[in-house]
Amino acid sequence: MGQDNHLDLPHMQHALRLARRSLGIVAPNPAVGCVLVKDGVVVGRGRTARGGRPHAETEALAQAGEAARGATAYVTLEPCSHIGKTPPCANALIAAGVVRVVVAIGDPDPRVNGRGLAMLRVAGIEVEEGLCRAEAAEINAGFFLKTLKNRPLVTLKIAQSLDGRIATATGESRWITGEPARAYGHLLRATHDAILVGSGTAVADDPTLTCRLPGLEDRSPVRVVLDSRLKLNEWSKLAQTAQQIPTLVFTSASEGGGGLLTCGVEVVRVGRDAIGRPRLEEVLAALANRGITRLLVEGGASIHASFLDHGFADRLEVFSAPLILGGSGHPSVDTLAALALSEAPRLKMTARRSLGADLLVSYATED
Amino acid sequence: MGQDNHLDLPHMQHALRLARRSLGIVAPNPAVGCVLVKDGVVVGRGRTARGGRPHAETEALAQAGEAARGATAYVTLEPCSHIGKTPPCANALIAAGVVRVVVAIGDPDPRVNGRGLAMLRVAGIEVEEGLCRAEAAEINAGFFLKTLKNRPLVTLKIAQSLDGRIATATGESRWITGEPARAYGHLLRATHDAILVGSGTAVADDPTLTCRLPGLEDRSPVRVVLDSRLKLNEWSKLAQTAQQIPTLVFTSASEGGGGLLTCGVEVVRVGRDAIGRPRLEEVLAALANRGITRLLVEGGASIHASFLDHGFADRLEVFSAPLILGGSGHPSVDTLAALALSEAPRLKMTARRSLGADLLVSYATED
Repeated sequence: MGQDNHLDLPHMQHALRLARRSLGIVAPNPAVGCVLVKDGVVVGRGRTARGGRPHAETEALAQAGEAARGATAYVTLEPCSHIGKTPPCANALIAAGVVRVVVAIGDPDPRVNGRGLAMLRVAGIEVEEGLCRAEAAEINAGFFLKTLKNRPLVTLKIAQSLDGRIATATGESRWITGEPARAYGHLLRATHDAILVGSGTAVADDPTLTCRLPGLEDRSPVRVVLDSRLKLNEWSKLAQTAQQIPTLVFTSASEGGGGLLTCGVEVVRVGRDAIGRPRLEEVLAALANRGITRLLVEGGASIHASFLDHGFADRLEVFSAPLILGGSGHPSVDTLAALALSEAPRLKMTARRSLGADLLVSYATED
Repeated sequence: MGQDNHLDLPHMQHALRLARRSLGIVAPNPAVGCVLVKDGVVVGRGRTARGGRPHAETEALAQAGEAARGATAYVTLEPCSHIGKTPPCANALIAAGVVRVVVAIGDPDPRVNGRGLAMLRVAGIEVEEGLCRAEAAEINAGFFLKTLKNRPLVTLKIAQSLDGRIATATGESRWITGEPARAYGHLLRATHDAILVGSGTAVADDPTLTCRLPGLEDRSPVRVVLDSRLKLNEWSKLAQTAQQIPTLVFTSASEGGGGLLTCGVEVVRVGRDAIGRPRLEEVLAALANRGITRLLVEGGASIHASFLDHGFADRLEVFSAPLILGGSGHPSVDTLAALALSEAPRLKMTARRSLGADLLVSYATED
């Protein structure tokens, strides 16, 4: 054990903050942070770069240069041990003369899975694992799900009245929540790799689904529409901007979609579920195969119900406005398969914050 | 100005805490707190006693005895100036030799309304008004509404799933929220003078509507049922316990109710509104005339909608459980008269707290 163990925590928290900044822009790679510390001084910091390369360790080592010799590395995820498009980070840490590596959590990627830590130990480096494991698991949840279950992490986003309505009886929904809540919604887009809506929402709202936060305009996620019967037309904003921002339409229709293809939309044909919808398992697998690790679902109510019914809703971000729309308003979640109270999808509240006059409550499935 | 002005705040906060403890047991009187301080030492504390008498000042002066001479009195509401069932508190403060009185807010009761403060000033006592006015207004909101508008403060209590449902499609609602939230619901009962439900809820659930918190069992509020067609029967728990706990049934039926009367239920006949319901204006006036200053409304959904439609919902206490019941569940608030988004009842979030796994968000109408 090194002498500065009591100082490990703030350095790892520093690395976690770096990692979080890369969420949404590094798929299919994990978002990793790395801090190099020597004699109590931070000599290098790095996070996974846009597109997934360079890795966090590479960045931090480059910053530190010769100062890396004798340093401790704080890394939010086990350093890689395999030669991919970059040489293994474990080798780079060894070569740089790092003497101690503190890792938050292991990498379940079968090409790594403990091998990175083993390489470091064999080279005589002191290795510790598990500091801030829960936070690191949370940051890597999408990458882990893709690696282990071949599907992305799914976050449902709901903006509702305090009585759970997303539109009035006549369909009015602009705006239920205020400006700060809507800005936060765009931040959610920036930190996810893809955003999904049903064709009902796509046709009714004709949205662009981009991130329009000042300074984060280049973080718009891949757009995905679930569109059983190919209702999305080529004059929609989504189709018209498909050349600039990757756009996928999943359908169970066996023909059609030529107009969308011409616009640059990728049309993916998948099987039907019991009620004629594109099968979610196939949709999620197809997204994972395209490298998507974090998927934001923005409705409508029947799409939310499908994800909940299938147990695919890992997180909920619920914005509640302090107003009441009453029983004639559109519900935020359609009828679920589970009808008994004991079978209702249960979650765990993980965070809550005020956003202007509105409230954001975050939920996660209980593990 | 006295020398200890910078110390006024904690003493007034002390008095406010005392006042809050009397909410729900002092109707038709206001809940008042009084702290007497001499040379920086608290020499007397009092709060309005059960049933409204003795008044807070009387209690505090009795505790202080001779020590009241030369003391400062912190009172959350202007001392009364009229002879009711007790002599005026303003006189008592003068007679005790108090030299300074700090009052949070004036009493709009036409028999007081500044007269209490004037009496003190005439007697040479230094008087200050307005410290913690907002907190005092909040505590006295029910008393003020009764005094100025002849109706009680109305709090709607809702216990719902995160998507705004209070029961499953088959009517299951026990329990959506957990034990801590339900205990807090009983605390709400304890701090209100009366509790109101619709006959639908009364018949379906056969509730007792009592406060069952250990130690607060004697704080059960008056029970009120809105029952247009006298559906409540004499074998209901409400009717069967009406001898022990005052119970009112408001109806617009012109006859019937003999069985309820025999049980000790007071049956009050009021006019019908447009949809055949007991007119809320009349119901609230009748409750105010009986001394009720704080009314807790516990549903169902159509009762909540009525109170919102009429602008009578002053506060909402919304318990949200971290589960989803979906679109087939019963909504917490029925269809409202206002259909456009711009007309939807808007509130202001005033507090939020975790209760076990659940969340309680408090709302108030914006003034």
